[in-house]
Amino acid sequence: QGILERLDAGEIVIGDGGFVFALEKRGYVKAGPWTPEATVEHPEAVRQLHREFLRAGSNVLQTFTFYASEDKLENRGNYVAEKITCQKVNEAACDIAREVANEGDALVAGGVSQTPSYLSCKDKAEVKGAFRKQLEVFMKKNVDFLIAEYFEHVEEAVWAVEVLKESGKPVAATMCIGPEGDMHGVPPGQCAVQLVKAGASIVGVNCHFDPDTSLETVKLMKEGLQAAKLKAHLMSQPLAFHTPDCGKQGFIDLPEFPFGLEPRIVTRWDIQKYARKAYDLGIRYIGGCCGFEPYHIRAIAEELAPERGFLPEASEKHGSWGDSLSMHTKPWVRARARKEYWENLKPASGRPYCPSMSKPDGWGVTKGARELMQQKEATSEQQLKELFQKKK
Amino acid sequence: QGILERLDAGEIVIGDGGFVFALEKRGYVKAGPWTPEATVEHPEAVRQLHREFLRAGSNVLQTFTFYASEDKLENRGNYVAEKITCQKVNEAACDIAREVANEGDALVAGGVSQTPSYLSCKDKAEVKGAFRKQLEVFMKKNVDFLIAEYFEHVEEAVWAVEVLKESGKPVAATMCIGPEGDMHGVPPGQCAVQLVKAGASIVGVNCHFDPDTSLETVKLMKEGLQAAKLKAHLMSQPLAFHTPDCGKQGFIDLPEFPFGLEPRIVTRWDIQKYARKAYDLGIRYIGGCCGFEPYHIRAIAEELAPERGFLPEASEKHGSWGDSLSMHTKPWVRARARKEYWENLKPASGRPYCPSMSKPDGWGVTKGARELMQQKEATSEQQLKELFQKKK
Amino acid sequence: QGILERLDAGEIVIGDGGFVFALEKRGYVKAGPWTPEATVEHPEAVRQLHREFLRAGSNVLQTFTFYASEDKLENRGNYVAEKITCQKVNEAACDIAREVANEGDALVAGGVSQTPSYLSCKDKAEVKGAFRKQLEVFMKKNVDFLIAEYFEHVEEAVWAVEVLKESGKPVAATMCIGPEGDMHGVPPGQCAVQLVKAGASIVGVNCHFDPDTSLETVKLMKEGLQAAKLKAHLMSQPLAFHTPDCGKQGFIDLPEFPFGLEPRIVTRWDIQKYARKAYDLGIRYIGGCCGFEPYHIRAIAEELAPERGFLPEASEKHGSWGDSLSMHTKPWVRARARKEYWENLKPASGRPYCPSMSKPDGWGVTKGARELMQQKEATSEQQLKELFQKKK
Amino acid sequence: QGILERLDAGEIVIGDGGFVFALEKRGYVKAGPWTPEATVEHPEAVRQLHREFLRAGSNVLQTFTFYASEDKLENRGNYVAEKITCQKVNEAACDIAREVANEGDALVAGGVSQTPSYLSCKDKAEVKGAFRKQLEVFMKKNVDFLIAEYFEHVEEAVWAVEVLKESGKPVAATMCIGPEGDMHGVPPGQCAVQLVKAGASIVGVNCHFDPDTSLETVKLMKEGLQAAKLKAHLMSQPLAFHTPDCGKQGFIDLPEFPFGLEPRIVTRWDIQKYARKAYDLGIRYIGGCCGFEPYHIRAIAEELAPERGFLPEASEKHGSWGDSLSMHTKPWVRARARKEYWENLKPASGRPYCPSMSKPDGWGVTKGARELMQQKEATSEQQLKELFQKKK
Repeated sequence: QGILERLDAGEIVIGDGGFVFALEKRGYVKAGPWTPEATVEHPEAVRQLHREFLRAGSNVLQTFTFYASEDKLENRGNYVAEKITCQKVNEAACDIAREVANEGDALVAGGVSQTPSYLSCKDKAEVKGAFRKQLEVFMKKNVDFLIAEYFEHVEEAVWAVEVLKESGKPVAATMCIGPEGDMHGVPPGQCAVQLVKAGASIVGVNCHFDPDTSLETVKLMKEGLQAAKLKAHLMSQPLAFHTPDCGKQGFIDLPEFPFGLEPRIVTRWDIQKYARKAYDLGIRYIGGCCGFEPYHIRAIAEELAPERGFLPEASEKHGSWGDSLSMHTKPWVRARARKEYWENLKPASGRPYCPSMSKPDGWGVTKGARELMQQKEATSEQQLKELFQKKK
Repeated sequence: QGILERLDAGEIVIGDGGFVFALEKRGYVKAGPWTPEATVEHPEAVRQLHREFLRAGSNVLQTFTFYASEDKLENRGNYVAEKITCQKVNEAACDIAREVANEGDALVAGGVSQTPSYLSCKDKAEVKGAFRKQLEVFMKKNVDFLIAEYFEHVEEAVWAVEVLKESGKPVAATMCIGPEGDMHGVPPGQCAVQLVKAGASIVGVNCHFDPDTSLETVKLMKEGLQAAKLKAHLMSQPLAFHTPDCGKQGFIDLPEFPFGLEPRIVTRWDIQKYARKAYDLGIRYIGGCCGFEPYHIRAIAEELAPERGFLPEASEKHGSWGDSLSMHTKPWVRARARKEYWENLKPASGRPYCPSMSKPDGWGVTKGARELMQQKEATSEQQLKELFQKKK
Repeated sequence: QGILERLDAGEIVIGDGGFVFALEKRGYVKAGPWTPEATVEHPEAVRQLHREFLRAGSNVLQTFTFYASEDKLENRGNYVAEKITCQKVNEAACDIAREVANEGDALVAGGVSQTPSYLSCKDKAEVKGAFRKQLEVFMKKNVDFLIAEYFEHVEEAVWAVEVLKESGKPVAATMCIGPEGDMHGVPPGQCAVQLVKAGASIVGVNCHFDPDTSLETVKLMKEGLQAAKLKAHLMSQPLAFHTPDCGKQGFIDLPEFPFGLEPRIVTRWDIQKYARKAYDLGIRYIGGCCGFEPYHIRAIAEELAPERGFLPEASEKHGSWGDSLSMHTKPWVRARARKEYWENLKPASGRPYCPSMSKPDGWGVTKGARELMQQKEATSEQQLKELFQKKK
Repeated sequence: QGILERLDAGEIVIGDGGFVFALEKRGYVKAGPWTPEATVEHPEAVRQLHREFLRAGSNVLQTFTFYASEDKLENRGNYVAEKITCQKVNEAACDIAREVANEGDALVAGGVSQTPSYLSCKDKAEVKGAFRKQLEVFMKKNVDFLIAEYFEHVEEAVWAVEVLKESGKPVAATMCIGPEGDMHGVPPGQCAVQLVKAGASIVGVNCHFDPDTSLETVKLMKEGLQAAKLKAHLMSQPLAFHTPDCGKQGFIDLPEFPFGLEPRIVTRWDIQKYARKAYDLGIRYIGGCCGFEPYHIRAIAEELAPERGFLPEASEKHGSWGDSLSMHTKPWVRARARKEYWENLKPASGRPYCPSMSKPDGWGVTKGARELMQQKEATSEQQLKELFQKKK
């Protein structure tokens, strides 16, 4: 059954987690460029991660094609060996995803994401060309449906949806925005309306913000669609990092990004709360993005097991709400084998010299100063402020 | 070259990371029992993790035989399918480790750890019997050397070393103790002396405490050996969690163990500091335990690259001290592409409603109360204190 | 010169700090009732506190008549000795304030605050009667101007202003509200408009929220007045506690109120930032409320000394920005004798087992549940939620 | 009855709080020099503070003669008006303390503290001369007993005790040291022995460390005395700041000293715990030092009311364990009117951008580097480290 049949029938569809962060920690993706040439270089690592998500309960395996548009791969060319072409990366991604999907009953979704072409103001035709090139591979490899994800600008997302719709396959579209809306200031509700009008059957958010913030954004999208009398399925794939201190541009601007985010990693119990809240909000495509490891996806599947009627395979290695601790030799560890305990735990960081929140970088800088930053390649806000003062 | 040849020649030997925690998150190990039947059930997952550590720079691949003594596996019998015998688990572990080791030039180490038999006061012969049964497999599979690890009582560790020495192979021994010493109150220096006298060529600590605390303990071991005029190589394989608030029994007693430890996870930069500090202390076998993921092991290899003269394979996907960020489009992210930045960052937890330290459970409970806890299966300290008051 | 002459001439007027909290710590006011019978019982303590504020730079001494309406004093009757009548409390307050004001050149302001009569739904005439009774004393004692402060409901504040205006003296009006507005949901801008229309020449906020939040509220008031083309002077007298985690009803709902607020106390440097920000926002009557001690008021006077051209008397015992440390014997303490140091310090709490933020009590409880709480006298939200569930 | 009669009879004697910090906040003492010329300049402020402590339960009023030795006052001469001689400061201090003591039944204690003469290596005769000069005033004014307090070096403290003993009056001696001992490395137990041998009848600690750390130190003193078979009464007057992160030299080295200590201020409930713990340890002279406000002293008196059989006067304005909240209109505030609530509260700082602990300045600097610091007047550790490196 296809994605829309499942969602239309009221099923909960569980997405997968974040490949670039998980594979960075495993040694196969480089932070900075974040490109997916590992599909060609180390297929066994990509395959194993897909398998873990499948086992954890994912109903959709996304092809590992994040940032795999030609312009992006070229832009980061120095990281990519000569013969690893854009086409090869995308084809390998499809093959691996399909191979693992066939081990269960998961769907394969081909994905495109924002392009350097758009950011450097290339025209619509050129940007669409980049998407179309990836789409050709997805069609050749016959993925089950398509996802346009990680867009900061609704305009580009709409272009992506338009291209993907040419395929005739169902299209989902998620933006990496928060409640304040896209980078041009289009609010979430309006973004959702534009995406559905462009042809998306499923809309929502992914990346950049923590589960709570992301659900807030999806809620605004839902309200926007209702006001416009449009129908679409809702989807959320947030970060597995706590980011209450984010600014409009999300976790990229946090001083801890990307190599010091550890203390922000969410627990499985945080995810169970997220899954319940997403479900209650009417979201039926529930997954994750950067930071989501297989056990986070399993937590979604376990929380929603009562509704779905089954547990994922990986739950054979996990007791509900810590009950695998019930045989521990220490009574105070046994005492942790219960829902109430983990639900209420306020976990300590073990870092008494660290704060609990950070001020995002680049935050509060005026537009003029930001432009100076771009030009001058200044490396600190201080420098920028000085430059900006001088200019005045 | 064998482990002792390498260490005797002054080489730095990099260990691997923690299998039970990493595979629990990937869905193959059950927290609570923590037994390694995955070697039989899902060899591909175990193999992939070995491969990632190898790629990250590990010079030793430990067989995934933690808690694989027969008494432990039986004790946790309900988790182990009928035909997965102790022997099969251990044999598969050896085969997988050797297969991956051959992809590089790593050594394979067979490992034994503390047994339920000892804790339930079985006699020396019986406890030694459990170790010998595992040793037979290690001999049949011809591992390169042996490790007795994760012992809370030096008496049992000495018995393990004695058994392992019967093989004629080099033996390393690490205890999961802190500066206060073993559970019978034997201080670290004295533990080290007993282990070396029993035949260990390499001694140190693993698990239970964070890098800083573990190094403090190894320092005490070093001083004990010096005072006794004994020679041995030093080894450390700490947790990748910050645990400044631990009591004598380590992280098990922390309220966050094992399902809420996320905010305590150390960064790669914390590990670089650990690797440097370990090296400066004279430790030459430097690895990790629970919480160590491949990127943590890579951080050891990168920190000590100047001394060793080479980087690990996985560094092709990692810039030193964040320099892969130097091409980022945002200037304030580019500004993070330098050592000084990451060295001094105090990462926020994103958890303003959580404390930075916890009081360990079971801590401060008197011996009498602890005994009551064991008998009565009370689940809280409060209950115990009440029982204890009544008894008085 | 009167208050309006000063403000009209563009002068900065510095208010005083919080009497009930300061005198509670000194042993003369009881937390809970918070009534000011100390004016009769211990005039020397009240006099000394006035004197300290005067010395710190206060240009206005408010009579210590907070919660000194007859209905409030009776309501708390058990705390008030038989012969300490409402009239005596108010008269003594006026006498003491005037005595100290005459030691400098400060003005005396008579103050009224919200009444139990209003909260228990007494009619307009009765509530106004309570204010009028206090006003009679203020007229007899000839205070310089009048303040209606600490109102949660703009309706009652308007009634107070109307009564005070009967005197012909200038009237200031401050509400204890945040950016969300009054307890009936009237937004700050609209509150300001109503107060000015009722006759207030000075409007703003006091109490309940920290300096940052309070300034945000005054900003909304300013915008409301501008939109309505009304003119009035602006005033702010916030808490000297950090309360970023407050709900709509302010610090009363924080679990730390009122006996565990210590870690939230603001530093003198926080106050200097507040004074600057208030000034930049156009506020010219700048003071404080609960938690403000004399040294906080001095910090306002020191920050604005460049604008005003003089320092307060108490600055003879204070070096600007820590410069009194410049002769310390320890070089690292001498190094703290500079503005940059104190401006950037992130002070630690010394409380690693405590969080940095709290969830306000009664927060998120639905209106129905709140009502149940009132009726049933339940003591926990949990109980209430249960009751509420049952009712449904 | 004298101090020794009271203590010998088993009475609990409650000390007073910290004058320099309290009067700094009130505007009468300058941080840095911390000298007590306010006794002459503003006797009403000093008198009022004595009165508040008396009312809060203090049985001893210490003359406000901290740092009032002639060498100190001269050293800080620029802060002292010409005619405010050492003698006048000390005499006024005695007069004010006696006046207030007579309002109740408190004793007056004359106090001396460490001198610049000692630190600049003047000889024994000269240092003793400084103490003797103050003692002459104390004898003329006939104080009830004498206290040598705030000594970092036991040698100087012994000299002070020897001088004070010349008077024939009882002598108490407290050092501002932690468990690591005095600045020459003399451990607390040995310090206590020397002080008792020199003639002190009461020994203990004051200032520099928080209640918990201070009690640890007194415990070591007690053990030292027991081992030496000496008898003395025990006394503790700690800070009212949490300082778990202090180094050997106490809170002076914390980056927050002295103008950013607010988040560390202890609550009244912390003090009740301290008072109980001190009592259980056998300490019978229980008071406070810097940071202790009148309400902290009242908390000692309230905690020990069951043992003493009475409450202090100021308790008329305080309900035990928050019970004055029991009539609050909000049920969730009423719910705070109980001991269990305040005992278990973990108060939030409201400062999510701040850490919970700090690294002390000057900490970890080698002795050589410290000396360089003294000579070169370098203002940062970094500079010092560089200088130190160069020298090597």
